[in-house]
Amino acid sequence: MDDGLARAIEFLKEADRLKRVERRSFVSGARRFENSAEHSWHVALMALVLGERWAPEGVDVTRALRMLLLHDLAEIDAGDVLLYADEATHAEHQRRERAAAERLFGMLPEPLGAELHALWEEFAARETPDAKFAAALDRLQPLLLNFMAEGAGWQHNGVTASQVLAKNRSMAEGAPRLWDFAQELIHEAIRRGYLKDDR
Amino acid sequence: MDDGLARAIEFLKEADRLKRVERRSFVSGARRFENSAEHSWHVALMALVLGERWAPEGVDVTRALRMLLLHDLAEIDAGDVLLYADEATHAEHQRRERAAAERLFGMLPEPLGAELHALWEEFAARETPDAKFAAALDRLQPLLLNFMAEGAGWQHNGVTASQVLAKNRSMAEGAPRLWDFAQELIHEAIRRGYLKDDR
Repeated sequence: MDDGLARAIEFLKEADRLKRVERRSFVSGARRFENSAEHSWHVALMALVLGERWAPEGVDVTRALRMLLLHDLAEIDAGDVLLYADEATHAEHQRRERAAAERLFGMLPEPLGAELHALWEEFAARETPDAKFAAALDRLQPLLLNFMAEGAGWQHNGVTASQVLAKNRSMAEGAPRLWDFAQELIHEAIRRGYLKDDR
Repeated sequence: MDDGLARAIEFLKEADRLKRVERRSFVSGARRFENSAEHSWHVALMALVLGERWAPEGVDVTRALRMLLLHDLAEIDAGDVLLYADEATHAEHQRRERAAAERLFGMLPEPLGAELHALWEEFAARETPDAKFAAALDRLQPLLLNFMAEGAGWQHNGVTASQVLAKNRSMAEGAPRLWDFAQELIHEAIRRGYLKDDR
């Protein structure tokens, strides 16, 4: 067999492990946390559904979608960290994710490995319009899940309104129209008592 | 709020239910079945990784990838059916899936709903090269999972070698190089005793 294909298949088998990485949001109607593989599908679907009409002009939605399929792969080694964790935790997690990405994309034949690794790095850096749009969807998705669960995830993790407003504000740059919507959603969650109001 | 966006968001909330649809393959290293949302992510990732080098010439990999993100959505109403089920079961399931797709894509604003519904129908019909390539990935993925689980899924479902060879032969048209690989994998599974040899 073609050695490049054998390597690509090994990578895809390794990727299966993302289905065992637990996040901190609840799946609607189920008494369990979401995992990072289903989350990755959900955000990619969001790019497909929202990209054409609600992405800022100039965003390449297909590139954003590709980033979203890859964006959590490094969690196979590094696990998931709560968005609302402290800075030291995030810095250490980022270091472990970079090493994991190195290992995982290194499994692929070149130039494919380098291409996909570069897409992963671009998302992680959140500097380009495509990466900022993808990151905005990655923020919006858990907001939807938490709203659907009547705030169960927020309450479970001790997250408050001021934290949610501060930590998701970066959406304003990547997807201003979706940030407008997200703010309405957050304020409605506060009104309904899903989210503790500490402002 | 923009009414089109409100409708798109309702569709994306409804899509969350795909995470509760159980398939018949085991997640590697976990004692549970895969669900259709994580499966959808895995096949979309396969399109991203394998599309550039191992798709037949002329296939639009991005279209195939978009189909794969949507292809199982109708299971939200219709559930999953084992590939190796009988024809009457498949025909009834297909009827229920078509009604479900009607309902789900009807939640979206136009022309978005009609566009995505057409992509879903194109996949379901398996007539275009893009749909055939996407369908080949949809076949290859459970083969990988079953191989990784040392045949646990096949054994659990009473599936034999002749069934696997017959039911996956359609891969030959959509992705001949991947079908070559799949045949090697199936024969290795037979040699190892993962798959019952009834030929």
